[in-house]
Amino acid sequence: MNISEKQLPTPVLQRLTQYIDLVHMLKSNGEKWISSKTIAQSLGLTSSTVRQDLSHIALSGSVSKHGYKLGDLQHALTTSLGADVIRHAVVIGAGNLGKALALHEEFPRRGFIICGIFDSDPKKAGKKAGALTIKPMSTLKAFIHQKPVDIGIIAVPSHAAQSVADMLILNGVPGLLNLAPGHIVVPKGICVVNSRIVTSLRELSHRITLTKRNMK
Amino acid sequence: MNISEKQLPTPVLQRLTQYIDLVHMLKSNGEKWISSKTIAQSLGLTSSTVRQDLSHIALSGSVSKHGYKLGDLQHALTTSLGADVIRHAVVIGAGNLGKALALHEEFPRRGFIICGIFDSDPKKAGKKAGALTIKPMSTLKAFIHQKPVDIGIIAVPSHAAQSVADMLILNGVPGLLNLAPGHIVVPKGICVVNSRIVTSLRELSHRITLTKRNMK
Repeated sequence: MNISEKQLPTPVLQRLTQYIDLVHMLKSNGEKWISSKTIAQSLGLTSSTVRQDLSHIALSGSVSKHGYKLGDLQHALTTSLGADVIRHAVVIGAGNLGKALALHEEFPRRGFIICGIFDSDPKKAGKKAGALTIKPMSTLKAFIHQKPVDIGIIAVPSHAAQSVADMLILNGVPGLLNLAPGHIVVPKGICVVNSRIVTSLRELSHRITLTKRNMK
Repeated sequence: MNISEKQLPTPVLQRLTQYIDLVHMLKSNGEKWISSKTIAQSLGLTSSTVRQDLSHIALSGSVSKHGYKLGDLQHALTTSLGADVIRHAVVIGAGNLGKALALHEEFPRRGFIICGIFDSDPKKAGKKAGALTIKPMSTLKAFIHQKPVDIGIIAVPSHAAQSVADMLILNGVPGLLNLAPGHIVVPKGICVVNSRIVTSLRELSHRITLTKRNMK
């Protein structure tokens, strides 16, 4: 059974996507093998967590004393998670963060093509963001119907996030990456992942407080 | 016992930080009360998860039929998680993402002051990123010793991430937010949180695949 056919707990899914990146990096460094211990040490996990996570993916080829063959592991992770699919995304909001995303060189290398960037401010329309031209929101609907847009990246202020999400969903975009401070509500069948740097900063801040107290 | 004195599982901590943002938003919208059901619906969780998470924080005042008083909940979350502490951060890497972070208006409002931005490219030194001037890496050490830097935000390419982390740690920065594709290894007592938009995109991509299959 393919991993894509069953629901995985979010933490497992997040770790598996981290394994892809690690394997990708080690492979481009010329490494051939990886052990669950190396994965664990690199990512601050236990070896048993890594082995348990990897039991979810269809990994052909036995585990040798060197660990897993990098190529096999990469293939198994990529196909199992559907990371071999090219996804087309639009960015809504051409502020600093939105433009940085449109310009980010890593995304196309990882299979995410940013095919459009939109902003509600008429003064921004027509300006460049890398190779893309910022388009007015009034053209979003027609754009989505012409291009196979899988993902809407919401990089607008909090108060506009829900209406942007509604517009994307109404026009058939199945997945939303919400970078906005506001929380968005979506109907069943629509996928949302929240990715907020300020939430990560809060988590880090709490860990620093905790570590300092434990060291006293 | 304060939450800051015990180790919480990462998912609980991440959800509690999400609750802070939600409470903050509802309060600025003029709301007075919130129920665990509302929190659950807003964030796509179950009410019992929310109640269990909130049992970790010192919440004075009883739960009424309206739910929790927003002000009480905000206070309890903020003090328990140490989110009332002001943190000073430096951004390393003045590429598109690094500059966007330095310019991001949300951070100071949430208690995170970006006090410096550094880049190894001598051509970038002296240029502006909002109110900040991009500084050369050679001045990082002296800067950290002059200012109370709690957090280093690593926004450099993969191959440079580890050496930047080492430099920050060597100069006494206790927390790192790693936005770089590479994984970094740190000694015990140093806190690292990885926040990578491409990992969120992968998670979203997998969820889209899964949803499409289930709808067939």
